[in-house]
Amino acid sequence: MEPRIIDYIESPQDLHALTNDELELVAHEVREQIVSSASLHGGHVASSLGAVELIIACHAELNCPHDKIVFDVGHQAYAHKILTGRLDRFDTLRTSGGLSGFTSPEESPYDVHWSGHASDALSVALGLARARDLEGGDQHIVAVVGDASISGGMSFEALNQIGQDRERMVIVLNDNGMAISHNVGALARHLSELRASNDYRTRRDALLGTLKKAGPIGRVGVALAESTRNTLKSLLLPGVTTIFEQLGITCLAPVNGHNIAAIRRALRRALASSGPVLVHVVTTKGHGYGPAEEHPKRFHGVGPFDTTTGEVPEKAFLYSDAMVEALMRETANGADTFAITAAMADGTGLIPFRETYPSRYADVGICEEHAVGLAAGLAAGGKRPVFAIYSTFLQRALDQVIIDVALPKLNVILCVDRAGIVGADGATHNGSFDLVYLRMIPNMHIICPSSANELASALHTALALGGPFAIRYPREACEPLAEDLELEIMELGKSQTVRTGDDLAILAFGNMVTPALKAAEALSEQGIEARVVNMRWAKPIDLDAVRSAAETKLVVTLEDGCLLGGVGEAVATEVARLGTKTPVLTLGIPDQFVPHGSISEIHHELGLDAAGIVASINEQLERPAAS
Amino acid sequence: MEPRIIDYIESPQDLHALTNDELELVAHEVREQIVSSASLHGGHVASSLGAVELIIACHAELNCPHDKIVFDVGHQAYAHKILTGRLDRFDTLRTSGGLSGFTSPEESPYDVHWSGHASDALSVALGLARARDLEGGDQHIVAVVGDASISGGMSFEALNQIGQDRERMVIVLNDNGMAISHNVGALARHLSELRASNDYRTRRDALLGTLKKAGPIGRVGVALAESTRNTLKSLLLPGVTTIFEQLGITCLAPVNGHNIAAIRRALRRALASSGPVLVHVVTTKGHGYGPAEEHPKRFHGVGPFDTTTGEVPEKAFLYSDAMVEALMRETANGADTFAITAAMADGTGLIPFRETYPSRYADVGICEEHAVGLAAGLAAGGKRPVFAIYSTFLQRALDQVIIDVALPKLNVILCVDRAGIVGADGATHNGSFDLVYLRMIPNMHIICPSSANELASALHTALALGGPFAIRYPREACEPLAEDLELEIMELGKSQTVRTGDDLAILAFGNMVTPALKAAEALSEQGIEARVVNMRWAKPIDLDAVRSAAETKLVVTLEDGCLLGGVGEAVATEVARLGTKTPVLTLGIPDQFVPHGSISEIHHELGLDAAGIVASINEQLERPAAS
Repeated sequence: MEPRIIDYIESPQDLHALTNDELELVAHEVREQIVSSASLHGGHVASSLGAVELIIACHAELNCPHDKIVFDVGHQAYAHKILTGRLDRFDTLRTSGGLSGFTSPEESPYDVHWSGHASDALSVALGLARARDLEGGDQHIVAVVGDASISGGMSFEALNQIGQDRERMVIVLNDNGMAISHNVGALARHLSELRASNDYRTRRDALLGTLKKAGPIGRVGVALAESTRNTLKSLLLPGVTTIFEQLGITCLAPVNGHNIAAIRRALRRALASSGPVLVHVVTTKGHGYGPAEEHPKRFHGVGPFDTTTGEVPEKAFLYSDAMVEALMRETANGADTFAITAAMADGTGLIPFRETYPSRYADVGICEEHAVGLAAGLAAGGKRPVFAIYSTFLQRALDQVIIDVALPKLNVILCVDRAGIVGADGATHNGSFDLVYLRMIPNMHIICPSSANELASALHTALALGGPFAIRYPREACEPLAEDLELEIMELGKSQTVRTGDDLAILAFGNMVTPALKAAEALSEQGIEARVVNMRWAKPIDLDAVRSAAETKLVVTLEDGCLLGGVGEAVATEVARLGTKTPVLTLGIPDQFVPHGSISEIHHELGLDAAGIVASINEQLERPAAS
Repeated sequence: MEPRIIDYIESPQDLHALTNDELELVAHEVREQIVSSASLHGGHVASSLGAVELIIACHAELNCPHDKIVFDVGHQAYAHKILTGRLDRFDTLRTSGGLSGFTSPEESPYDVHWSGHASDALSVALGLARARDLEGGDQHIVAVVGDASISGGMSFEALNQIGQDRERMVIVLNDNGMAISHNVGALARHLSELRASNDYRTRRDALLGTLKKAGPIGRVGVALAESTRNTLKSLLLPGVTTIFEQLGITCLAPVNGHNIAAIRRALRRALASSGPVLVHVVTTKGHGYGPAEEHPKRFHGVGPFDTTTGEVPEKAFLYSDAMVEALMRETANGADTFAITAAMADGTGLIPFRETYPSRYADVGICEEHAVGLAAGLAAGGKRPVFAIYSTFLQRALDQVIIDVALPKLNVILCVDRAGIVGADGATHNGSFDLVYLRMIPNMHIICPSSANELASALHTALALGGPFAIRYPREACEPLAEDLELEIMELGKSQTVRTGDDLAILAFGNMVTPALKAAEALSEQGIEARVVNMRWAKPIDLDAVRSAAETKLVVTLEDGCLLGGVGEAVATEVARLGTKTPVLTLGIPDQFVPHGSISEIHHELGLDAAGIVASINEQLERPAAS
């Protein structure tokens, strides 16, 4: 292997000694490393490739960790990880015990903020700036925010205060003109007008030609720098007032985000200001790696891939796909549906729905609060909106679910995807909490299907019964829906016994039914006959099934969700109300943030696979009974 | 009593037959009614007085309920209630069984939306507009949004999509230049520039003179209309680009919000458009009632008052005040605190802190998400931020508490005010859920003090132990802090037995300790000796106390919060785990949205006063034991 500059970089201060041409080489090496490491276990390739020069320019101008870079969505920050002492572990990205896919203060003093959910960096950066000024400190605070993140409401709330307080800080707007899939919203259009407002775009497009000729991982950074040097002379954008300026934030004109010298010039100017300055950096998602530039959506969050061709193994059929297939069947059969996503058209599987029913579809951007309010309005207008959202991001819209949907009992269906352990994305992305914060809400119904076919029936049930519904399903592969599937309207709050047995009863929710059955088989070999109940409904819960379970020797609850406040506690409370002597063993996610790893590894570690369930039950059965 | 026009108005269509001069008379009558009714039981007087002409103009131009008015924060909508068939019940406002203080679809077909939390109207209105267009309907959709509400992130998220979709709808910006107290943020400054950008302000200020001479409830509407007729000729604002226009929303120039003819002209023009139009209506909070104009903060949410003088009875010393007093003592003793409010400087009691420590204070506007992110940044920068927030509004920032505060274990203290039943504000404002959604979060600590002195020790404990803390207290009066109060650092997860007894154990949280003690006295007269435990910590919970309670004949839990997922379930789960025969009775808020009324009435209805507790216990004791 050729000697590399990055192997000698121990801290980002080492970048200070390099020339811009050398830094362009560093960019190339970093890019190669990102592609090669991410190809092993997958990752957020496109965003991170787009931000390489931007991050190098920041570290070249800043003195971290004294100065602070706050990344909005840390998955753009792979270059930052590589340049802050984590190169040797970079191949472990997103694996169990390895580096996190996001910035994490636990991992490095260079990571200011545990950045997994979009739009929070500006608030955190402002807090750091105010703390600095109270201390009389001199640190630079730089927030790096994507154009999709900045359209989230929380970013606007922060901009509103930043424009008022005028604290000294720099906002680097990493504008790649895309959210996770395509960007949406009026602000995106505004940004695109700004990009087009000088002659920047023309030059960029010409450069893209050069770049594409350079091959999958071409040494394009250097070429780019050569050709653009001195072309972006004026940093001030004449004649255009930006929204940010109207809020009181100084804006520098768009700079080429793949020209380190240009970014550094803009940054130096911004860092010298005594107030807030926005540096508009125009980047290309996937920059410098042909396949990622060509397929930025595929390479947003990608699994392992072939570095030469950019090919990825065919995607499995997921619960997300089953939900969308079921939704399309319902719509074809006359249900007056409307599908909403918050910037996750791909992840939630909604693309086929969008193609078939474009007028019944909205991608609202990374705006979960608004998405739920929009659903409420559609429902009040007689439609049957379905909001497909990852469990972890629904946390953003709790209040709207309570006030705008549940209180007026509107016909809104929340398709809560990626519920439970999600794997490689780790602590910020696990869907641990939805069962707790949804079941506390009056008027809410929650179904946890245990198979794709049951998911289709859950949707059918929600459409038939009406009212606020949540359907919760995991990030797991499943069988495709049967072609001739007979849909069932599930009886409200009624479980299904899927295995009989009177020694003990396992009450399982959703994806936990399968390991429960396996555990029961293993227990049977020990001579213990366990009943297994597919609870189906997390709200209302089947209290008859609970009471009947309390007549066995042990009640076990099993949920892929956090134990505190979870459905296991609902079961335990009913048993405790009865005052029987049957103990209740609640199994689920313990009271901790669960780090990244594969889903099966983590389920195993948490004792939520068949072996773990059997072990917990045996341990409980060996405990002396209470007096 | 003089005959009034409003007594003959059965539906808002009746307004169509009236001249603008007659409508000005209606405005006067409505205003008198608002002041007189609200003086009985309190209410949101200032906002509603400011919106009288605006609402009359809307109903004069619209055909409701076919057309839809979506109010953002329904407490501005008293005039709407009076004009839509609820005049005869208007004196019952905010009382048990009476009219809600907010719009409510349960109450009237004219109320589109259950509007209690700010910033959701634009999303709901856009949903209604999209539903209408899918149906090919012709309804007008009008969202009435205050200048404070529009700065909330959710509003921006909606504007971002409205500017893109360009659905036909009208946004009435009710701009009174104030949030609940004074307005904050760069957007507020932008709006004020717009107001000042034509000669509107000068005229308005001149008119204010006329108006003030007209006495506390002068017939000022008519006079105002006379003098401003034909003064606001141009509805287009020359030379100023608004933020809304940059997002693709047509803006009409500011109009005098107390001139019905002028508002109607602007509305007609807006309603004729095929896309989204913003009508900027400049109003005065408290307009037409001298005391409310003079003291708009006092009359934001006011209790009963004297209509002639505007005097209100002296405010009781609340838990909010105790918290702020404790915080000021800690700060004076060197704690490196920073206080944050989201537009609730008055309600949370923070005014004295702001006056003493202005550099350690931020009012971020109605931006709860940003408030928590800001707190995280301050904590990461070494400060000890304290975010004082009503329980119901903290629902807006759940994700930020999880991701930005709890995951990195930052030293952020959430002072969760108005926890439990809040009384007259009703279903949208009860603090029912915080114990559930906070205790599910790893790394979180929760203390429920049962007195003002204990609240001070809770704050002291949070500062001493560090980490994410929530301190939960009710909307109740309390004793002032003792001058020579000895602060205690509470032992983590350790309860306090406040009454001994071995027949049964009542485990009470926070404000429920007092009724628990009263209940125990009553039970003692029956010969039942109840232990009463002040649990203090909702997380971590005192499991020793639970186990010891399980040795009595009955465990009773008592919380001013919802039962599903609440701390009662935490107790019950531990008892169920033990497998004892002791039943657990969980008392708290049942699975329903609780309507308005006085706090004591509601606690009584829910069985959460001493009599209710005794009754529930007796009922439980009479149940046959489980086998």
